[in-house]
Amino acid sequence: MKSFRDPVHNLIAFGEEDRLILDLINTSEVQRLRRIRQLGLSNIAYPGAEHSRFVHSLGVAHIMRRFLDDPLRESDAMFIKGVKDFRHVALASALLHDVGHGPFSHAIETITGERHENWTVSLLRSPHTEIHQVLEQHEHGMAQAVADVIDRSFQPSRAIVKLVSSQIDMDRTDYLLRDAMMTGAGYGSFDVEWLLHVMRIGEVDGEPEVGLDLAKGKSIAEDYVMSRYYMYLHVYFHQMSRAAEVLIEKMLLRAKEIGAFLPFLPSIDALLQGSLRSEDPTAIQRYLGLDDAVIWTAMHIWQGHDDPVLSDLAQRILHRRLYKAVVIRDDEHALTLRSRLLEEANRRKLPAPYYVITDRADSSAYKDDYLSPVDRDASSSKSSKPSQNVFLFDDKGLARELSQESFIVEAVRNRAVSVTRMFYPSEWGVMV
Amino acid sequence: MKSFRDPVHNLIAFGEEDRLILDLINTSEVQRLRRIRQLGLSNIAYPGAEHSRFVHSLGVAHIMRRFLDDPLRESDAMFIKGVKDFRHVALASALLHDVGHGPFSHAIETITGERHENWTVSLLRSPHTEIHQVLEQHEHGMAQAVADVIDRSFQPSRAIVKLVSSQIDMDRTDYLLRDAMMTGAGYGSFDVEWLLHVMRIGEVDGEPEVGLDLAKGKSIAEDYVMSRYYMYLHVYFHQMSRAAEVLIEKMLLRAKEIGAFLPFLPSIDALLQGSLRSEDPTAIQRYLGLDDAVIWTAMHIWQGHDDPVLSDLAQRILHRRLYKAVVIRDDEHALTLRSRLLEEANRRKLPAPYYVITDRADSSAYKDDYLSPVDRDASSSKSSKPSQNVFLFDDKGLARELSQESFIVEAVRNRAVSVTRMFYPSEWGVMV
Amino acid sequence: MKSFRDPVHNLIAFGEEDRLILDLINTSEVQRLRRIRQLGLSNIAYPGAEHSRFVHSLGVAHIMRRFLDDPLRESDAMFIKGVKDFRHVALASALLHDVGHGPFSHAIETITGERHENWTVSLLRSPHTEIHQVLEQHEHGMAQAVADVIDRSFQPSRAIVKLVSSQIDMDRTDYLLRDAMMTGAGYGSFDVEWLLHVMRIGEVDGEPEVGLDLAKGKSIAEDYVMSRYYMYLHVYFHQMSRAAEVLIEKMLLRAKEIGAFLPFLPSIDALLQGSLRSEDPTAIQRYLGLDDAVIWTAMHIWQGHDDPVLSDLAQRILHRRLYKAVVIRDDEHALTLRSRLLEEANRRKLPAPYYVITDRADSSAYKDDYLSPVDRDASSSKSSKPSQNVFLFDDKGLARELSQESFIVEAVRNRAVSVTRMFYPSEWGVMV
Amino acid sequence: MKSFRDPVHNLIAFGEEDRLILDLINTSEVQRLRRIRQLGLSNIAYPGAEHSRFVHSLGVAHIMRRFLDDPLRESDAMFIKGVKDFRHVALASALLHDVGHGPFSHAIETITGERHENWTVSLLRSPHTEIHQVLEQHEHGMAQAVADVIDRSFQPSRAIVKLVSSQIDMDRTDYLLRDAMMTGAGYGSFDVEWLLHVMRIGEVDGEPEVGLDLAKGKSIAEDYVMSRYYMYLHVYFHQMSRAAEVLIEKMLLRAKEIGAFLPFLPSIDALLQGSLRSEDPTAIQRYLGLDDAVIWTAMHIWQGHDDPVLSDLAQRILHRRLYKAVVIRDDEHALTLRSRLLEEANRRKLPAPYYVITDRADSSAYKDDYLSPVDRDASSSKSSKPSQNVFLFDDKGLARELSQESFIVEAVRNRAVSVTRMFYPSEWGVMV
Repeated sequence: MKSFRDPVHNLIAFGEEDRLILDLINTSEVQRLRRIRQLGLSNIAYPGAEHSRFVHSLGVAHIMRRFLDDPLRESDAMFIKGVKDFRHVALASALLHDVGHGPFSHAIETITGERHENWTVSLLRSPHTEIHQVLEQHEHGMAQAVADVIDRSFQPSRAIVKLVSSQIDMDRTDYLLRDAMMTGAGYGSFDVEWLLHVMRIGEVDGEPEVGLDLAKGKSIAEDYVMSRYYMYLHVYFHQMSRAAEVLIEKMLLRAKEIGAFLPFLPSIDALLQGSLRSEDPTAIQRYLGLDDAVIWTAMHIWQGHDDPVLSDLAQRILHRRLYKAVVIRDDEHALTLRSRLLEEANRRKLPAPYYVITDRADSSAYKDDYLSPVDRDASSSKSSKPSQNVFLFDDKGLARELSQESFIVEAVRNRAVSVTRMFYPSEWGVMV
Repeated sequence: MKSFRDPVHNLIAFGEEDRLILDLINTSEVQRLRRIRQLGLSNIAYPGAEHSRFVHSLGVAHIMRRFLDDPLRESDAMFIKGVKDFRHVALASALLHDVGHGPFSHAIETITGERHENWTVSLLRSPHTEIHQVLEQHEHGMAQAVADVIDRSFQPSRAIVKLVSSQIDMDRTDYLLRDAMMTGAGYGSFDVEWLLHVMRIGEVDGEPEVGLDLAKGKSIAEDYVMSRYYMYLHVYFHQMSRAAEVLIEKMLLRAKEIGAFLPFLPSIDALLQGSLRSEDPTAIQRYLGLDDAVIWTAMHIWQGHDDPVLSDLAQRILHRRLYKAVVIRDDEHALTLRSRLLEEANRRKLPAPYYVITDRADSSAYKDDYLSPVDRDASSSKSSKPSQNVFLFDDKGLARELSQESFIVEAVRNRAVSVTRMFYPSEWGVMV
Repeated sequence: MKSFRDPVHNLIAFGEEDRLILDLINTSEVQRLRRIRQLGLSNIAYPGAEHSRFVHSLGVAHIMRRFLDDPLRESDAMFIKGVKDFRHVALASALLHDVGHGPFSHAIETITGERHENWTVSLLRSPHTEIHQVLEQHEHGMAQAVADVIDRSFQPSRAIVKLVSSQIDMDRTDYLLRDAMMTGAGYGSFDVEWLLHVMRIGEVDGEPEVGLDLAKGKSIAEDYVMSRYYMYLHVYFHQMSRAAEVLIEKMLLRAKEIGAFLPFLPSIDALLQGSLRSEDPTAIQRYLGLDDAVIWTAMHIWQGHDDPVLSDLAQRILHRRLYKAVVIRDDEHALTLRSRLLEEANRRKLPAPYYVITDRADSSAYKDDYLSPVDRDASSSKSSKPSQNVFLFDDKGLARELSQESFIVEAVRNRAVSVTRMFYPSEWGVMV
Repeated sequence: MKSFRDPVHNLIAFGEEDRLILDLINTSEVQRLRRIRQLGLSNIAYPGAEHSRFVHSLGVAHIMRRFLDDPLRESDAMFIKGVKDFRHVALASALLHDVGHGPFSHAIETITGERHENWTVSLLRSPHTEIHQVLEQHEHGMAQAVADVIDRSFQPSRAIVKLVSSQIDMDRTDYLLRDAMMTGAGYGSFDVEWLLHVMRIGEVDGEPEVGLDLAKGKSIAEDYVMSRYYMYLHVYFHQMSRAAEVLIEKMLLRAKEIGAFLPFLPSIDALLQGSLRSEDPTAIQRYLGLDDAVIWTAMHIWQGHDDPVLSDLAQRILHRRLYKAVVIRDDEHALTLRSRLLEEANRRKLPAPYYVITDRADSSAYKDDYLSPVDRDASSSKSSKPSQNVFLFDDKGLARELSQESFIVEAVRNRAVSVTRMFYPSEWGVMV
């Protein structure tokens, strides 16, 4: 048995029955997540938001365990059959769902052109990773099973897939609570005790689905959707975080363009040379070498680089001299402003792609994907559509869709959280 | 006006009157603290303890501001004369008290042979730092005033010195609350609202002193002392944190010994070559280049170093393969165990100084110094003795010392939190 | 100076400057509020909701004081002129706003036919009450000034009126937070620190208005409106609370009908005889004798009364044998069910008005009045319409109405929280 | 299944397996506890402390259920044999442990000369109470089993007895947490998650005992003992609460002395006539009629009584005109002050027993009994001595006593929380 203390959940403990989870926590791939901040550069706007993907992953496994161990579910046949019998797959998937994340996820995904889920699956399948070995030692086929849950193709229990990744899942539950607490932005919190209490395993189209009790769960579902909405609005799409992410991305692109290699940091070089591809087994060790520390160190070095653009971008991030943002009202505004900014860049002899940047942060709070406007399903042809729905189960087990039951969710659903901004160096003065 | 959200204090805001503080927050020296974790490697034992010295520094300035702005003190002449009239010095000192910290403070201090306070004072005095320039722009002589508060020699108001650094000061108040919250170790928390409410500015030996109201403050003072006691016992001296710190220190010592220079990381090289000296003005920029990221990057690189010892130590930290610890019962135990461990090191042909390590973590909860058993006063000849006392002021303003009023504090005072451990590689098996 | 501890606000303290408030707290009229539960019988559904109107009143005065003492408002001329100069009126009105409440407010208002605000104003004006005497001793005309704030006719500062009673006022702020905490129903909580931080005094139609900062306050305004919506839905209109309130009301009506006088409880007798009228100065002492205790004692006595209806109703409340509720779907449902229930009452020879009860709980979350669907303004011809709006002030001080800025509030606004139920004895079995 | 929300524990839920508990909650004897405040008149000093014995009883049953359902104990044979097999006795005893409490417990116990535990046992044994009937319906002999747990003579499992009542039991755990939260006095809180996590069932002298894990539990045990210490010091023995309790007691004694009967309140009359005796089966219904409401109503009536002493005492409580207190330093102080006060009473022609009162509040924080300095064991000859010890179990299951392991507890143990005060009417002026 091992227990952890946690600011969000207080006590996180796993017993001997869950030795697998304790062994997975000790692998170097999971330990690496300690060196990657969950919210990238959001601490620029919310100084307390410095938590890592490691502690979030622990939290997701913990919520899953609480759900599995709730004594009030002991007599629920659907729960036993659809969830409890898959205890170890459920817990391992919860713990490992983010293991393929790189540092500053959005920027890195732009450079590599690959989503972090691909890396998670690769790490699970590779016979050379410790997580693969621990899983296979526990039970042959386990690594593939967890990979299937991650890419949403796990057939033995669709409910496990939904518990790990759907509109109301263990991942979001932990990150909303944790991000809300750590940012100090009160909006994001909700009553996790009640949420877990009213979660139900029901059946939709003959397939087990995760949902909430209709009578008891509608308000908490609304609260949850609203929490997400506010977290996008105030945290995930915060102007300063976006400004910082944009700078990281442009800095890496510039380093790639001019070939600013750092031979002693092979993971950075592989990134810049485009050789980090999840299907390439030899790339895995390089990818695992990427963490926040090496990116920051690259900035330290690049701030003295001969290329004035690269050196400028690195210094701006290090000393928090962010670009100024203008929120774009409409297409005409975009066109006018852009042409004025391009002119200014030209006048200053600065390469526009690095100094005049359009950024569109987009997500509906109800059909969102964390920090990425792209539909998560789109990346996996095997995923099933129902996951984008939140189900409410009535007394007889009949499912209804949340947005049809709730005028509040219906109102939010049709309003994507979306903001388009144009960024440029603040020393250019006010340009609107 | 600018406001921050914070997990500990919720809302932190400074008005235009405190523009100086907002300007100081924006300096690169203060921003650098974002890249240094407050508790070094304590997150190995307490995964949530990932907060930086930056957010702690903000918190200290915030508590100071709350104390300054408490409307119930408006009619307290001692408060006006001794504290309120020094508003900006008080706030700036609170914000900047940790600005000279390096990464993994204890290990770095061992390598450089200098305490972080020296660096804080140097950074304040150097005309080349942004904090110096911002302070001097606000008012000539301000940088020196803040430096005087930090090294406890500020004569115009002794109360300000005590508010920044004494047994019950704003620094400890924030770090105990913050560390307790982030570790999730409930012991460390106490009622900060009540503490601030019962703080008093009184007079001892003709000099203003910070203390607590005798009638209302005794229990909170006890609670505070107990919180510190528990935080030492369970967090600051936790076996895993100590094991990790010991590894960092030994790794740096080995790198220094064998001259494992990293030319592209000049701050590391300066550290290894012993040229980081706070009295050397040219060393300051190098020192400011040190942060958690470069140390972690050095580990990434050194894990593949030719020297098997350096490479082994780096790998152990990166993948959390910590040394095993044995708590030493007495001198005889120490001698016997040490000789057996040296023998084993010899047998395995390993250099004992890196593989057999005695570590003594020591502090009394009442006469402690954060993470350093050395008496803080010893480092500054100007500091006055009374600061090690906690005063309780009665109705007539007469001061009594806490340990004479409280049998609980008296009991704790005579028990140093102290533990001596011997560390060695866990693969050597059980040795007791 | 006097300080109180409070589960919601932690520390509540008033300094010597606010001696008036401390004196008012000590009056017997304010002390009486300790014996009246804020939420009547809601503790039947939410066992923890046992707090009194006294502690709520303290809380309202505390929030008002915090707003008045916020150092960040010191430079806001509108705030100084419109609010700060009326410190004592503002604090006294906040403390005394509920002083005229009787026990089980809704039921008592039905019996007396008078709203509690009338009693508050009478108590303030009567030269025989302690609150009147304390206020007048402080400053001649003060009692009338506070009464004017309560009935919304105070002309010297409209802002004070709005701070005490409007859509986002100190009263609601405390009761939402307190009721949410005490019920344990997480929905109702919101970030009070942020709310106070973004409150603004602006101008609308040449008159000072209380509102929120447009840029910073929209989300908290939405959160606040949603909190109210959920508190109505889950707490204030909870079926069990309504069932219990309906029983209290019917019991009192029956006692009145049959003249079940209790000579030793003159306040009850005055209530039953219809002689409790707020404009009658001799009725005031009788009214002040009404509290939860005498009502419960009347039940103890009436449970053995000869009248089987009165005795039955008293027993049902005492031993929590509540009526069963059916939620009415539409008019036809109401008609059908009602006729079946009347038939059953007839069959059992029970007087239908006491055994077949239609209850309509109604309020829009945005145009609500706490526990009373009637428009608060309607009771006072002097009140001004703008109070039903929530204003958001932009940088230039221009006001916009919340529901025009927020699609969420717009969605909630048009949905009254309203539920019509039919209650009948549960031993009649299921009738739908 | 039924769930409750609670300010302390958030969600309290019992499943169908625990139908017995849900049925017991619905009995009129348990419902009556809603009308008895847990802390009597402590809300005079701490306005928020208005919670009832009902919600506390629910909380105790909830903590017991959590302990029983902890999945990490599934493999602990000692736990299965000593605790889990007695699930329903454990839960019912936890819920019912306070069912015999009267209003203003200390004062009523003084008048009746009986401890509330006697009434609890009588209510359990009487065939006429609902709790007896529900228990017997569940299983024959159950009522007696629960009575045995309450009076500490239950032989089948000593561990259950200790879980309900010992130095660290479920009763104290809930009341410390709840009283701390409701008073707002931060001192009393401790980390209940960790406490439950480190509780162990071990063996002492061949008998199962409840204790804590030695390695993990020592600090929380200290924290718990300190919490109790502070709650006595600041809450339970608060001067204002004691002053109010003393007045209630004296008022009832005066009413008894002069025979101020209230025929319509038969429970009060039985109390005054000394006919409330727990061994008298006919007294039970009368006793159950006693609650806070009838005592307050008696005050309302007695405040107009012809006897000036009775009327004066009633008015003092109702309008919070408490006696002044002088803390007694030593015997000489007591003698001098007492003689001066008696003289003053004589001069004013007031009966001294009602106007000059010596009150000794006494308890050691470690060998205490809630609000009663008398050793709880003394009231039951069957109780075993070890219950006054807190055991810490090491790896091998060996027990050590807390005060021998902890210098802090040792220090507190030898300091009884004890204060002797003399009370007299405040209008007599300062007498010291």
